[in-house]
Amino acid sequence: MNYNQVFDEAIDRLHSEGRYRVFIDILRNKGAFPNARCFAGHNGPKPVTVWCSNDYLAMGQHPKVITAMEDALHDVGAGSGGTRNIGGNTHFHIQLERELADLHGKDGALLFTSGYVSNDATLSTLAKLLPGCVIFSDELNHASMIAGIRNSGCEKRVFRHNDLDHLEELLAAEDADVPKLIAFESVYSMDGDIAPIHALCDLADKFNALTYVDEVHAVGMYGKRGGGISERDDAADRIDIIEGTLGKAFGVMGGYIAADMRVIDCIRSYAPGFIFTTSLSPVLVAGVLASVRHLKSSSEERDAQQTAAALLKQTMRDAGLPVMNSVTHIVPLMVGDPVRAKKISDILLAEYGVYVQPINFPTVPRGSERLRFTPGPAHTPAMMTDLVAALVEIWGRLEMQLRKAA
Amino acid sequence: MNYNQVFDEAIDRLHSEGRYRVFIDILRNKGAFPNARCFAGHNGPKPVTVWCSNDYLAMGQHPKVITAMEDALHDVGAGSGGTRNIGGNTHFHIQLERELADLHGKDGALLFTSGYVSNDATLSTLAKLLPGCVIFSDELNHASMIAGIRNSGCEKRVFRHNDLDHLEELLAAEDADVPKLIAFESVYSMDGDIAPIHALCDLADKFNALTYVDEVHAVGMYGKRGGGISERDDAADRIDIIEGTLGKAFGVMGGYIAADMRVIDCIRSYAPGFIFTTSLSPVLVAGVLASVRHLKSSSEERDAQQTAAALLKQTMRDAGLPVMNSVTHIVPLMVGDPVRAKKISDILLAEYGVYVQPINFPTVPRGSERLRFTPGPAHTPAMMTDLVAALVEIWGRLEMQLRKAA
Ligand SMILES: Cc1ncc(COP(=O)(O)O)c(C=O)c1O
Ligand SMILES: Cc1ncc(COP(=O)(O)O)c(C=O)c1O
Repeated sequence: MNYNQVFDEAIDRLHSEGRYRVFIDILRNKGAFPNARCFAGHNGPKPVTVWCSNDYLAMGQHPKVITAMEDALHDVGAGSGGTRNIGGNTHFHIQLERELADLHGKDGALLFTSGYVSNDATLSTLAKLLPGCVIFSDELNHASMIAGIRNSGCEKRVFRHNDLDHLEELLAAEDADVPKLIAFESVYSMDGDIAPIHALCDLADKFNALTYVDEVHAVGMYGKRGGGISERDDAADRIDIIEGTLGKAFGVMGGYIAADMRVIDCIRSYAPGFIFTTSLSPVLVAGVLASVRHLKSSSEERDAQQTAAALLKQTMRDAGLPVMNSVTHIVPLMVGDPVRAKKISDILLAEYGVYVQPINFPTVPRGSERLRFTPGPAHTPAMMTDLVAALVEIWGRLEMQLRKAA
Repeated sequence: MNYNQVFDEAIDRLHSEGRYRVFIDILRNKGAFPNARCFAGHNGPKPVTVWCSNDYLAMGQHPKVITAMEDALHDVGAGSGGTRNIGGNTHFHIQLERELADLHGKDGALLFTSGYVSNDATLSTLAKLLPGCVIFSDELNHASMIAGIRNSGCEKRVFRHNDLDHLEELLAAEDADVPKLIAFESVYSMDGDIAPIHALCDLADKFNALTYVDEVHAVGMYGKRGGGISERDDAADRIDIIEGTLGKAFGVMGGYIAADMRVIDCIRSYAPGFIFTTSLSPVLVAGVLASVRHLKSSSEERDAQQTAAALLKQTMRDAGLPVMNSVTHIVPLMVGDPVRAKKISDILLAEYGVYVQPINFPTVPRGSERLRFTPGPAHTPAMMTDLVAALVEIWGRLEMQLRKAA
């Protein structure tokens, strides 16, 4: 048994498939989002414009968030110093859970160290509490939901993306008495499309299934108070468990679920991924508290994001660039080849000071490699004009086809 | 299928076993550790002394850490805004990984959102890369290692705690060509005992097994530079993967592994729990960077912690309290009954302003319920005298036996 050889081969496979990832080395400039410094190459940090951040609303630099974090830092210190049960439960955690429960119109909420952990811990624990449970999972569900479902040890049925007929077929094939859970996302982050929540809930009602929705790419950004697509579509009370992140639109870090108090109490009491880990730093929690409260009452950031996304899509379309038909704030530009996607991204960074990460397999299916832009309130029309001009130039240089303008 | 009934029954089980947990509601006072405010009950926040924090060295309030976090907050903002691969890799992350690799004398290191995630993601991914791998796991290993081992889908052999003969027996029973991994902790956090690292590595050499050590309760606190027991015992180069937390002695939040670059590269490239999650907030990373650097060159905190732990153990022993024989900074006081452990803790909080969490099943075996004290540099001899006097009074009140002083 030669361990080094096995590890070397695993890395070689990535190189040979063109999937070996090199991390870019940046620091963002607070107060000047989407501007950042890039440390790659020579000549010290170079300025770049970030087009692929999931700090969707630039809340990570909002004065209210910064101030709340600074105050907490000076009031209580850096870390929580313990698990929620042993020394690490702070008043901020309790307040934020109340705020998030209210955001989704639920009895309770529960914080996790990340959205990934909230999906993994909740799905695996929930299903274990329901012996014989069958989980129905949208084929495009995120890796963290897939992990939770796998770790639950339950039977899993994968339904075709947003395909109600297929889901119904699968539901109907199971015994009526078997516990069932339908798990899906509201906004799918790579294509930017949206799940038909009410229709999914109709099926859940018909077959007595629980519903679990990942609103990671929607919370803060949709609904009058930022409660996500379930708020926008007035469907929150039909969803059993709503899951979200605190690291994207809310601009900080962490994850949560909101649900009926008995579900919260079960996960809180039985999920190892919740119980046996140092709780979120109170500094982060204080920042999120400010962020959630702000976005509950202000729609300015949401509106500005939608305006920016619509403008970027239109500008790309006008230039003949193959932008995908996204109905949300996410702007995917199709390339269809991993080497080209990386090349475009490299040129943008080196020659235009534009940072957008290529999205390759396994994040998206092979053949649908793309660049994924996330314009927000801080991306100006002038930045968009520059970006699209750069893309058109590179498209020509790489002898790629532009569409006739519509 | 009545879901609510199933959930209610799950909660009822906890109540009937006396295992239902109620979180205490506190805020620590920065600059005045171990003092905190408790929000439970009436009459506004009450002052308490925290005796069960895992912010072992009070680094969570160290001026260098606070300043570094404040600077980062103003320089780059609250969150990272993305995964390590997509927009969330900052210069701080890269610097901290270098610093941690150096701390353990390894080629590389990799950050995770928590120590829990680092164990879960690394163990499950590592074992998947080694087809047919058998994992040898100490019976007292932490829940996060158990999760990672289970999620790897590998065969697992559990050896009796720190029992070299038993481990050798299990190793010898396997085929010589099968990949093997021995997983253990250096300091066991509930009993405060230490693993025989060199002897474990001898067995690993003999049977060509990889070694994985969780140094969560040792990093920052043992070794000349805080490299843990593997540094203290001069054994770091014999360990393949060293895992640690940033949320205990380093005072902030997060987790990591340090290892050979090819192992780091494999985990970085293949572990979903590393890849598909928002990276640690740069504010946290900057704080940890300051903390690790400080503890590399200063032994003051480590020495003061050892002095405090020795004094508390002696004071308890002199008073006839059943303190366990811990060889580390952890001071477990045996109670042996979950209801009593909770009662003592409740009285301490309500009447003495002392916060120490009772440790019950499943964190420790039934019948070994205890109070677990973690004295540090900021706990004064006067606080210890008060604490021990309170304990002696409560012991008497509950008609529990005191030992004859040794
Ligand atoms: C759909 C979805 N769910 C969950 C997560 C995980 O959330 P977090 O980044 O907070 O771990 C992500 C991305 O990171 C995601 O895209
Ligand atoms: C031995 C051990 N390993 C890992 C962890 C998890 O580390 P973290 O709190 O950073 O998630 C803990 C406790 O929390 C622990 O006690």
